[in-house]
Order: sequence, then C-alpha cells, then structure tokens
Amino acid sequence: MLYFENDYSEGAHPLVLKRLCETNLVSQPGYGEDAYSENARRLLREACRAPEADVYFLSGGTQTNAVAIGGLLRPWEGVVCAKTGHINVHEAGAVEFSGHKVMSIAGKGGKIEAPALRAYLSGFFADPNHEHMVFPGMVYISHPTEYGTLYSLAELTELSDVCKSFHIPLYMDGARLAYALGADGGVTLADIARLCDVFYIGGTKCGALCGEALIFPKGAPEHFLTLIKQRGALLAKGRLCGVQFEALFEDGLYFELGKSAVELAMALKAGLLNRGFRLFMDSPTNQQFPIVPNALLEKLEGRVRYSYWEPCGDASVIRLATSWATTPADVEELFKILDNMPIDG
Amino acid sequence: MLYFENDYSEGAHPLVLKRLCETNLVSQPGYGEDAYSENARRLLREACRAPEADVYFLSGGTQTNAVAIGGLLRPWEGVVCAKTGHINVHEAGAVEFSGHKVMSIAGKGGKIEAPALRAYLSGFFADPNHEHMVFPGMVYISHPTEYGTLYSLAELTELSDVCKSFHIPLYMDGARLAYALGADGGVTLADIARLCDVFYIGGTKCGALCGEALIFPKGAPEHFLTLIKQRGALLAKGRLCGVQFEALFEDGLYFELGKSAVELAMALKAGLLNRGFRLFMDSPTNQQFPIVPNALLEKLEGRVRYSYWEPCGDASVIRLATSWATTPADVEELFKILDNMPIDG
Amino acid sequence: MLYFENDYSEGAHPLVLKRLCETNLVSQPGYGEDAYSENARRLLREACRAPEADVYFLSGGTQTNAVAIGGLLRPWEGVVCAKTGHINVHEAGAVEFSGHKVMSIAGKGGKIEAPALRAYLSGFFADPNHEHMVFPGMVYISHPTEYGTLYSLAELTELSDVCKSFHIPLYMDGARLAYALGADGGVTLADIARLCDVFYIGGTKCGALCGEALIFPKGAPEHFLTLIKQRGALLAKGRLCGVQFEALFEDGLYFELGKSAVELAMALKAGLLNRGFRLFMDSPTNQQFPIVPNALLEKLEGRVRYSYWEPCGDASVIRLATSWATTPADVEELFKILDNMPIDG
Amino acid sequence: MLYFENDYSEGAHPLVLKRLCETNLVSQPGYGEDAYSENARRLLREACRAPEADVYFLSGGTQTNAVAIGGLLRPWEGVVCAKTGHINVHEAGAVEFSGHKVMSIAGKGGKIEAPALRAYLSGFFADPNHEHMVFPGMVYISHPTEYGTLYSLAELTELSDVCKSFHIPLYMDGARLAYALGADGGVTLADIARLCDVFYIGGTKCGALCGEALIFPKGAPEHFLTLIKQRGALLAKGRLCGVQFEALFEDGLYFELGKSAVELAMALKAGLLNRGFRLFMDSPTNQQFPIVPNALLEKLEGRVRYSYWEPCGDASVIRLATSWATTPADVEELFKILDNMPIDG
Repeated sequence: MLYFENDYSEGAHPLVLKRLCETNLVSQPGYGEDAYSENARRLLREACRAPEADVYFLSGGTQTNAVAIGGLLRPWEGVVCAKTGHINVHEAGAVEFSGHKVMSIAGKGGKIEAPALRAYLSGFFADPNHEHMVFPGMVYISHPTEYGTLYSLAELTELSDVCKSFHIPLYMDGARLAYALGADGGVTLADIARLCDVFYIGGTKCGALCGEALIFPKGAPEHFLTLIKQRGALLAKGRLCGVQFEALFEDGLYFELGKSAVELAMALKAGLLNRGFRLFMDSPTNQQFPIVPNALLEKLEGRVRYSYWEPCGDASVIRLATSWATTPADVEELFKILDNMPIDG
Repeated sequence: MLYFENDYSEGAHPLVLKRLCETNLVSQPGYGEDAYSENARRLLREACRAPEADVYFLSGGTQTNAVAIGGLLRPWEGVVCAKTGHINVHEAGAVEFSGHKVMSIAGKGGKIEAPALRAYLSGFFADPNHEHMVFPGMVYISHPTEYGTLYSLAELTELSDVCKSFHIPLYMDGARLAYALGADGGVTLADIARLCDVFYIGGTKCGALCGEALIFPKGAPEHFLTLIKQRGALLAKGRLCGVQFEALFEDGLYFELGKSAVELAMALKAGLLNRGFRLFMDSPTNQQFPIVPNALLEKLEGRVRYSYWEPCGDASVIRLATSWATTPADVEELFKILDNMPIDG
Repeated sequence: MLYFENDYSEGAHPLVLKRLCETNLVSQPGYGEDAYSENARRLLREACRAPEADVYFLSGGTQTNAVAIGGLLRPWEGVVCAKTGHINVHEAGAVEFSGHKVMSIAGKGGKIEAPALRAYLSGFFADPNHEHMVFPGMVYISHPTEYGTLYSLAELTELSDVCKSFHIPLYMDGARLAYALGADGGVTLADIARLCDVFYIGGTKCGALCGEALIFPKGAPEHFLTLIKQRGALLAKGRLCGVQFEALFEDGLYFELGKSAVELAMALKAGLLNRGFRLFMDSPTNQQFPIVPNALLEKLEGRVRYSYWEPCGDASVIRLATSWATTPADVEELFKILDNMPIDG
Repeated sequence: MLYFENDYSEGAHPLVLKRLCETNLVSQPGYGEDAYSENARRLLREACRAPEADVYFLSGGTQTNAVAIGGLLRPWEGVVCAKTGHINVHEAGAVEFSGHKVMSIAGKGGKIEAPALRAYLSGFFADPNHEHMVFPGMVYISHPTEYGTLYSLAELTELSDVCKSFHIPLYMDGARLAYALGADGGVTLADIARLCDVFYIGGTKCGALCGEALIFPKGAPEHFLTLIKQRGALLAKGRLCGVQFEALFEDGLYFELGKSAVELAMALKAGLLNRGFRLFMDSPTNQQFPIVPNALLEKLEGRVRYSYWEPCGDASVIRLATSWATTPADVEELFKILDNMPIDG
C-alpha cells in the first residue's frame, strides 16, 4: 500500500527519534523547564530572528489554535478567518468552546485577501449597530493554507498592515510551515515573525511525533503558562517537545525536511499534469489536489491511500500529501499504478 | 544530583521507547485509527476485564480530567471532590473553564469518605433551595491520591454504592495508577472497572513519554471523539499513545514498573523512619512525604531534588517520589547524604 | 418627532400596565411560582393548544435565545441558522459564549429554505470528516424574520419535516410573533406548537415592558429552571412577566395588538409604494423596509426616527416599524412630511 | 396569610409604579439610551459622589454578579468569596458557567475578614506551584451579607486596603443595599464608591419591579455594553430600569424605604428576643434569623410565610424579612400569633 493520505502517517523523522533515545535517561525538571526546551526556545528565537520572542510548546494543532486564539481574544471579540479556515471547519468548534465566535469571510484559494479584510473591518466599525455584534479581535490565516497555497511576502505584508491599522493581531497557523518554508520564493521565518503577532511552527505534520511551537515574537500575554495549563495543554514531560524541536532546529533539519517533501510534491504535480489530470488548486507545497474520476478512484482502492476532499461532478477532489517519509520511489510507484489505468477509469 | 522530585523527570521506560523505534516507519492512519491503538485498546479491555469498554487515548492528566468531567456533566451539574483533589487545586481551573463547578468536601488523607459523601448528597437533595444550586453530577477521586494514599476495596465499593444510589457517576483519576496497582493488597484494574463509571490509566507518570488511557467500562457517551477533538485533545499521530500503551500492557510492564517503584519507595520510607523522620502521611505508594527541618532542607540544595509540599512549623513537608527510573543505588545514595547530616540541621 | 424607529420605544400597552397596578400589592411567592405566572402558563398552553407544554418566562430575546439554544444543544453540537439570523449577527456572540457554534447557511428574505437545509444536513453527515466538525444540533428560525417576512404553513411544515428526519429540534425565535399572528393568512400558534420543538412568544416588542414566554410544547428538558438560574435569567419577581402575559393572553390582547400594528404597517406600505418608494423586501408584518435616497434621509433628521439598515447605492435601506403605540395619525403625519419633500431629495 | 418570606413578594413601591405609569407613553430610544436612564445615571453618580462613575442597569442579581465578575476577571483568574457567599451557593454556578472558579474562604457571620483574606492571598503568591493554580482576580463581598450582617467602615476600609495591596478589585453585591444604608451607623454610598472598584445597588429587593444598578466608580472596562449584550442582559426597553431608579433616587425614596424596613425589622427582633427566641445571627438589617422549634414551625404553617434557612438540632433557623411592603400591623399580627403559641411548640 502506498501512503499519500497525509503527512502524519509515520512516527518521527529518524533524527528526531534518535535524539529522544539519546536524552531519554537524563533527569530534567517538568513542565517545559528542562534544558532541552530551553535550548529549543533559543534555537527558535534565532531561526525567527526574534530575540524577544516567547516560545511555548503544545502538543497538537487544534489545541494550539484554541489556546492562542482563546487566550488572546477579549471576551467581546471573535476571530476572523477565511470560510475554509481550519478553525472554521475541522476543529469541532474548539474556538467556540472557549466562548468566541469564528467570523468567516470569503477567501480565495484558502487565503484571505487584504482588500476583502479591510472592507470587512471597515464595514464592521461603520455599522451603527456594531456594539450589538461580536468585535473582530484577531485575524487567523493558515500558511500553507488548507489548499496548500501560500501567501507571498507582498500579500502577507499587506494583511499585516490592515491588521495593524485596525489594532488587531494577526495569527498564523503554521501546522505545515516546513512545507511553506521549503517552497520556492516563499516568506521566511523572520518575515513571519516580523509580520505576525503570534504564529506556530508545526511539528506534528513536519517530522515530530507531536508538538507545535507557539511563538509570540514580541512577548506573550501575562500568565500564559497558567492559561496553557487551564486548557489542558501543558505537558508534564515538556522535554518531549523540547528535545524534538532541538533536533528539528539544531542543524536545519526542519528546513531540509520541508524542502525535500516539496521537491517530491513538485515531481508528483508534474507527473499528474503530464498524465492529463487537472488540479483543483495550484499548490506549491506538499499537498496536491488532483481531480480524479470516481471510476478511477475505485481502482486505487487497496493500492494507494489518499484523502477525500470534496465531490466535483463525476469526479472527486482528492489530496495527495508528501512528507519526510515519502521517497522518490513512492512517487514512481504511484505513477506506475496510474499508467496502468486509463484516466477516465 | 539525585532526582526524587517526581515520577516524570526522565523520558520513557526503555521498552516503551524501543517499541516507538521499532514501529516508527510503519505507515498508519491518524487520529487513533492505527493498528497499534486498536491493539492497545484490546489489551486494556483485557487487563480491565471489561470487554465492552471504550478506550480513548489523551496526552496528559489535566486534559483527560477536563475532557472526561466536562464531557459527562450536564450543564446544570458540577463535580464533587475532596478539598485536596487535583482538579480543585492544581489544574488552573480547567474544569471551571468548561463551565462546571468543582464542589469540594472535606476529605481524609486525600480521600473522600463514603459517609461524608452520602451526607453531602442527601443534604443537597433535601435542601428546599437546591434548584438554585449546582447539582452534584459526578464524584471525582484520585487513586493514589495526591498524598499517595489508596482506597481499599471496601472503601471503593462503598463509594461506588453511594454514587449508584444517587445515580451519579464515579470517576477515578489514575494519573499514578501503576503505583496503586503495584502496592500491597490494593484493588485491581478489574475492581476499578467494575466499581467506577469512568477512569483513566495514567501513562505520563508511569513510564510513557506522554499519554493517558481513558476507560469507559460500560461504553462512552455519544460522539466522544468529537468532544475530544473540540477540546484540543485529539492527537493526529494517535499511534504515539497506542504504541506506548501496547508496550506497557503487552507483557505486564505497567504492573512490574509500578511494583518496582513501590518497593523502592517502601525501602525509602523504612530508611527515613529509621533515621528519625516523621511522615506527614503514611503512603503505601511511590510518593513519600517526610517532614524535614528547614535547616536540613537547605543542606540538600544542589544534591537532591525533591518537591516542596507545604510548611509545617519550623519544618516542611516535602515529597520524594520513586519511578521506573529510580535505582536501589539512588536510595542508598540518598541515605548516605542524610547520614552525613544531623536530622535537626 | 415621529417614532417609527422600532416597536419598543414606549412602555407597556396600557392594559398591561393597568394589570401591573391592580396586582401590585398582592403578596406572592418568587421565581415564577406566583399565581399570575401559573395562570399565564395555563393561558399560553390553551392559546397554543398544547396541554403538555412547559412554559418559562425570561426577560429579553437574546437571553431567551441563549438559554434555549445553549440549554438544548449537546456539547458537540451547534445551531444552524440563516446568515441573517439574529443570533448570527446582532446578539454579540451570546450563543458562542455558551460554547456552541452558530452555523449559518444562505437564506432568502431572511428565511431558511427547506431544500437548502436538507442539502446542508445531508452534506454534513455524508462528509467523511464530519466527526472532526461541529454537529448540527438545532435549527433556528425567526418568525417574522429580521426582514419582516413570514414562513407559510407549507414552508414551516417542510422545515419541520426536514428537522424531524434528521432528529434535530426546530426552534423559532418569536420576538415579534404578535405581528406574524396578526398578518393575513399566517400560521397559528397551534401550528407553531405542533411544528416546532421549542419557540418563544415575544413580549418586549409586542406590548410588554419586558418578558418572553419560552414554550416547550412537548415538555422542557430536565432541570431547566436551574439552567435558567445559572444563566442569570431567573427573575426574583417572576410575577412581573406572569402578570403581563396574563394581560396579553386573557382576552386576546396579544392578537389584537399584532393585528392593529400590521394594519397600520400595510397602510404605511401602500402609502410608500404610492409615493414611488421601492421596498428592499416585501414584508407582510409590522416592519417595512423602504429604500430611501440619502439626501431625503437627511431631511427626515429631527422629524422622524427610523432605524438605519444598510447602504444601497446612493440610497439606504431603512426600517420603519409600527406597534400598539402607533396611531393612524402617525402614519398620516409621516405621509405629510414625505409629500412635502421630493423623493429624490 | 402574613408574608415575611422575603423582600420581593409584592410588585414595586407605589411611587415607582406611579412613575412607570406617568412615563409610559413617551417615546424613547432603546437599550439604555433613553432620557430616564440618563437621568437615573446622573442621580446615582451624585448619590455615590462619584462623578466619573459608569452606571449600567441589569435586570437581576445573579445576572449582575455573573456579568460583573465574568467581565472583569481575566481568563486565568477566579473570584474569592466567603464560603456562604451567594455566588458560591445559590446562583446555580453562574460564575463557573462563565469559565471562572469561585474560591471560597472561611468567613464569619457571612463576612470576609481582612486578615484571613490577606493570609489567603499571601499564601497563594508564596506557593511555588501557584502558576498551576487559579489566580485570585477579584474579591466578592455582599453587603448586607446573606445573614443580614454589615461591614463597618473600618472593616470595609481594611478589606479595600488588602485588595489594593494585591492589585485585585473589590466587588460588592448590594442586592439589599437599601437595608444596609438604612441601618444605624453603616457605611454610606460614597464610602462604598470610594472603597470598592465595582458594586451594584439592588433594585429588585428594594422596591423595584426588577433592576440592579451596576456602578464602576472609576469607569467601566472597555466595551462593557457589548459584554452585557453578549450575556443576554441588555434590556431593549432600558427605560424600565431607568424610570424605576429615577423614582428611587430622585427624592431619597431608596434611603427612606431602607430605613423604614430596618425599623420594622428592629421591632421584630426586639419582640422575638422578648418572647425568648434566640437568633442565629445578630442582624442589624431587614433580615432576621430566629431559631424556631420545629413543633412551633408546623403551627405557623398556613398563617405566616417565612424562608427556611437550615436545621439546628430540634429547631430550625428561619428567615423573616421586612420590606417597604411590611407594615407595623404585620409585625403586631405576627407577635399575636406567637403569643398564642408556646415557644416550645
């Protein structure tokens, strides 16, 4: 069976696991006060060129979003996102569980466009009834988006400017940030740290067993550790994340791993296009979204695992994802399978 | 430096880590649908003699408590616990964050006594104003308690009977359950599964890198997976917990590890008593609570790590914990240090 | 100054106030256990032809929505409504504050259409990822809608059928129900009680000082009084609502008051159309939505109070509302003012 | 039947109702922007000698507590109160519903003592684990307390000083404030406004149909109106509260009404003591708490309504409350009834 279903089908990148083994018996304090976490925080501050940054490690993406958003919003505020935003669709209402509204606006290819955001925010404050409405208190973007697309530096700068002009923090969900950083011509970690008020660097989907690094480039809100604890997100063995992020950021592994997965994804995309498949979205990152006739899909059953995305006439949009665990041979193997099947099923 | 500070100062028991390494490259579905989690659930059902049980893996204790309690309580209900209960003191208000009151009653040695519970519940329903009050909707106990003490089978049975007579579920926080099961003459997993409506088998403090197994012996509430997701507690790489619990329960490792830590703790207790220390609480498990003169405490600085518990006149209650990572040599070393210091500082 | 701003600009209908005066010194128990509330509940059950109904009085519309919705939804569920639904826009996130998502779907003229609802619900349960999403757990409609429109009996029956087929309760926000009941050919209270699982009969905007009657035709959920108390919605002097609803329902005042306001609104509509105004929405109830050139709007300043609704090119949609306090002379006076101003400003 | 059950058994004080009638047909804007509310706010600022105060009207006590406490606390904070505090016992968990812990400490006669508060707060911040605990973020007192007792000026000043030294706001629940102000030698409204950070002046139990005036002497938090709306506590007909508080504060009615009820309560107390009854608590306000043999209680059935407080051996503590609606004749009548019954039943 070929696995292109997602980027979290295996354990950790071998170098990450190796580090866990090497450090396993060293005694350290709990709750993120261990030397590994301290060192990982230092490495992340350097990678972000944000010497004042506060860094917290959490265990998963939905959790990180809920803690960051619920922790920053004031009681009368909600978070603005694209209609397709992960927090609006696939997090089971985690933001609302913390008492806040998710206010979705139309996006394009999974992205929020700065003019649309500006119009939305202007409209809100111009509305004579806005005191009876949820105030927009944060803007959420994902990068890569749920469709694999990326914000250009110009786009991110413009969004950041809109947010600044309304005094609203910009938050980036970086569940798959490695694959954004590994794509051609994308924004850098330093750009992100400069333009966002808070963001997270995803570990789970980028080579770790678990773990996300939440970064506040200009410092975290007061008593954020207590807030993490309150929301059930403080690991007793904080070292579990610390060690992994040390391994990922000590010698640039995070960047390499993103780069190699994107290269394979580009090979995959080229091969799909060559074979006549249309793409639902042109993604420059590790997730590819071919439109596949349903008859063909059935034939892949038992041979290739993919993610079902959405129906599209007689065909379906599926997601094929690469990761550190994907090999060139996997891509070749997929092509072979496809070559033995007519595209129209 | 000697570490007796807690039972989560190191990584995972080597056999647990070994299993993570062995399975690392096998591709598996996410969110707990992997073969390892499935097998671990089977092993846990067997260990609990609860063939109908539903089992969910979460990543930490506070999270598990919050999800289980917040998920089972109905909106007008709160959870009853001993005043010293972990959820009442050291979880930063995680239960209240989910909208529910923690109703504490006086306990003894960290335990709720059945007659006190019965009196409390009877009093509540007899109060003519009880419709203006939070209804008791669950009883929370920890086993071992925050003071290392244990419920006897008779005590647990009586508590269970009280709960049943008021139609209120009994929930056991088993963060350190291995050390309860490893103590002499304690209740068994099958007893617990028979007498509690829901409980968790702690991994983080009992040899895993992270992970707790939440058990509903008679089946989980509807859509519990969605509730876990909503509260940010669903790991994408569910295998991380599945593999670890497989390793812990396949050949009885969990029980052995509890037993050996308790044996060392009993040696530690005996040695402390022989050296003239008084104990704050007589604990049959891996946590020991000697009362140590403050002058002596200062001398331990830099040589032994312990947990500060509470002041006690000119002395302090401290906690010394053993775990799978503690060796007989560690205990001997501690004794040597103490023998070179007069107990009165 | 002429008041067409809303239907809550004055105190109570004189007969309601008279009853408050007559009963003022009679001693009665608190919290809704008074004889007036008891009698009002009986009258409401009769008016709804729902002898099994449970009736609770609350003080305002947002509160009633939040208590009813938050009280009925299970933790993993949200409420489906039209994009323009009051709970989605103008209640400051009250539903989300209780932890639940408001899931908006496109509506038409403020109404949800049954086929769109069916498609949405089918799509949800067909989605392979729906366990990671908020479950639709209730459908919210307003009647009249925020645009004054009404569901026909056929439409309401069809919505009710869709809800039943998915085992999801249908909830009607009747903040202005008097004006729906007073319109030609509308559904009756008995229809509503038969087709909805829960609804409220608005008092505040229909002649009372305050107060809404929440009706569960088939009985309320367990311990609903405690839930009302918990959400700060239980009046100590429950008689305040009881007396008012007695006055409104004893001799059909509620129905008369709705009817007369609608008659004046129809006269208003006819006069506006005669004078060349276009209507944003054809409303059969007490709220009318003319499109008024901005230049003309300015001239109304200081002479007529209206509600600003939304911009519409060089013009604006405004709302003119009638109520029990509106007189035929008020409508005539408005026409005189308009007749002295050219419609194009 | 004689009514001493509570102070909310009748409608409004006749002068309050008269004002509602006089103003009934005047058209005014909604949501508290009416001229009556504006004037009432001015009168309250004057009465409190707090020219900078922000004033909001809400409809009931539990609601006001929940909005004020939930609105001021930051996410990681809870509210400290006496074990007997209304928010801890009789508000069905309204504070916890907003996500915050109620942290109760032992009180005396319903009051928090400053040394106990100081010890609690010092202990919290000295605890090495306090980052894993709920931070005390507000102190709640009731005045009169749930037992009718009062804080002296010295006591209130000392509490205020403790709060200031820990930078924690002091909140006073004044559900029955009229009866505190009407008692001999009590603190004044100006004292309260000077010493508390936020408090409310109760209307419902002090002569209004409904309504409480929430006062922030130094100004309210940002966007507090939206927060009130979000929690379902913003009345569309804000005038309902505005008119009533105008009537209560224009000519000192609130103070008179408190004074006369307290005078009757003192006569009641003297008469009870003369007749050999013991008092559970020596209350200087309108609530009296005699200890009554159960046999005697039964004989009162059908003749006198009282509130049952708690068992006390073979007797019971009951509450007898006076109000503006109580007459000297009512007290005499009660004495006659008692004189015809032996105190031992």
